[in-house]
Amino acid sequence: MSDSRRVATVRDVAKLAGVSPGTVSKALNGVGQLSAETRAKVQEAAAALDFQPNHTARSLASGRTFTVGVITSDSFGRFTIPVMLGIEDSLAAGQVSTMLCDGRGDPVREHQLMERLIGRQVDGIVVTGRRRDPRQSLGRVPVPVVYVLSESLDPDDLSITYDDEHGTQVAAHHLLSTGRRHLAYVGGPERHLASRLRRVGVERALAAEGLELDPNLAMYGQWSESWGRSAATIVLRSGRSVDGIVCASDQIARGVLDGLREHNVHVPDDIAVVGFDNWDVMVQGARPLLTTVDPHLESLGREAATRLLAAIQGDQPIEGGMVTRPCELVIRDSA
Amino acid sequence: MSDSRRVATVRDVAKLAGVSPGTVSKALNGVGQLSAETRAKVQEAAAALDFQPNHTARSLASGRTFTVGVITSDSFGRFTIPVMLGIEDSLAAGQVSTMLCDGRGDPVREHQLMERLIGRQVDGIVVTGRRRDPRQSLGRVPVPVVYVLSESLDPDDLSITYDDEHGTQVAAHHLLSTGRRHLAYVGGPERHLASRLRRVGVERALAAEGLELDPNLAMYGQWSESWGRSAATIVLRSGRSVDGIVCASDQIARGVLDGLREHNVHVPDDIAVVGFDNWDVMVQGARPLLTTVDPHLESLGREAATRLLAAIQGDQPIEGGMVTRPCELVIRDSA
Repeated sequence: MSDSRRVATVRDVAKLAGVSPGTVSKALNGVGQLSAETRAKVQEAAAALDFQPNHTARSLASGRTFTVGVITSDSFGRFTIPVMLGIEDSLAAGQVSTMLCDGRGDPVREHQLMERLIGRQVDGIVVTGRRRDPRQSLGRVPVPVVYVLSESLDPDDLSITYDDEHGTQVAAHHLLSTGRRHLAYVGGPERHLASRLRRVGVERALAAEGLELDPNLAMYGQWSESWGRSAATIVLRSGRSVDGIVCASDQIARGVLDGLREHNVHVPDDIAVVGFDNWDVMVQGARPLLTTVDPHLESLGREAATRLLAAIQGDQPIEGGMVTRPCELVIRDSA
Repeated sequence: MSDSRRVATVRDVAKLAGVSPGTVSKALNGVGQLSAETRAKVQEAAAALDFQPNHTARSLASGRTFTVGVITSDSFGRFTIPVMLGIEDSLAAGQVSTMLCDGRGDPVREHQLMERLIGRQVDGIVVTGRRRDPRQSLGRVPVPVVYVLSESLDPDDLSITYDDEHGTQVAAHHLLSTGRRHLAYVGGPERHLASRLRRVGVERALAAEGLELDPNLAMYGQWSESWGRSAATIVLRSGRSVDGIVCASDQIARGVLDGLREHNVHVPDDIAVVGFDNWDVMVQGARPLLTTVDPHLESLGREAATRLLAAIQGDQPIEGGMVTRPCELVIRDSA
């Protein structure tokens, strides 16, 4: 929606057809009692003006029946769930319903879904995905679009995401402020932007204290508990006196906790451990209960929906840009 | 869709309007080049016959553009994910896209969603939810509907789900066939049908060997790891010589495994443990790797979509009934 040229409104169509805006809405939405001639007259005027029937028209005719489409690349996965809950939370007050479609990360499929959603008259689209890695833009779309979690590569799109770097910076700062000095970082795969950014966050917190992250204690691996268990062993066998570990996910952190326990290392007294995600399934299963970074995915979903709704209701294009929200450290027992 | 009376088809409308079926489709879908008069003539004929524009009409005009709506009560949760993947898997071959809506278990909201989906011309609806507990029917709907996972209380609806009893029966049978004789059952909340049915499965397997489930070793609790850990302690302190534990979920089983390990009980040699769900996150994190019951949710989703697609393409109502599919025991290291 970076197109700011004037588009025809319901009022323009009504004027040309010589009817009221309400009649335009009824004619184009196929509701209410209208003669075939009136309907045809409106359709001709709409075609002449290249009018795209929009939310305003429909809401005039039918009350609040907004629908927002959500396209995810996360295969309905666990990152989409909280984002969707946030979107719904925000939209429910406005009696807006959502339809979630899975693009499977395939641009061709996503375009098909987008066209189908528009064909089914959604008022706006939220695009979301798995983790932070930037994604292709859907391009020009005739309804407002907001990207959330996964940022769009097109700066003319509005993207709302969280600040990975800030997240681990706060986590590492907490470790430093409670007396730790020798930190390790256990990341996911290096090819994932989130893994790399979260490492930078740890480095920044250390730099602020005049310290450095030992490259031998900055590790990349998998997003899994078993990698976390292996990483705990690597840290303990490194011969370095580590007293705090920042992990790039809660699954990794849980593996680290289990690995440390098996080596009779006490958490948090000997080594403090922080996770990332605040994923209840992992946090509640971990012992001790996991201190972790919450990226507040629900808030991102709420914000995306609020911005989308404002654009829909105000009939305004969405201003492009990148919005990055801070994460929050949730302190429990592991650090 | 238990209504079997004859409804008007595209051909009926075409005959009355004196046009071809293709023209009917174009007119009612607002696509293609048609005069306003032809469009009006078709609309009048459709109204006179009380014709509901359907999938066949739209597919005639636009090729394969089927869309299926999915209503879940699972808040986009982890039971919906595999069901959705199965549905999409089945539908993708037919170029069908899906739209997922969250009814939050609220019948009023579900009806609104259903109406909106139909207003947006979906060709069929799948209703799914969290676990097995039966749910209210959506009632009479003008497109085919299939219930999956959560069964409909209306026997005129088609419900496809898995067999809880069979699942734990196979699990308990496996324990018995490998020499165990003293089984415990660790369930979720007693109010959940799945908890009660899974207990019956264990009892049946024992009965087949002339054994009984000790009521003191059949426990209800929560769907959580911490309940599993507590249950392990209860079993060990019961004074009974348990050699096998059937758990009602993988989360419970993982807690049982951790609890047993802390008491230095060796799994599977001292006590064998079986879970239920085959949830990768829990299975892969558990040590030893968890032997568990797979309810094959993806298969259920695929079957639901296949039945729905057949009904849509054949323009046939769906025959009501209850289809229950067996579970499969996936043997790993814990039993």
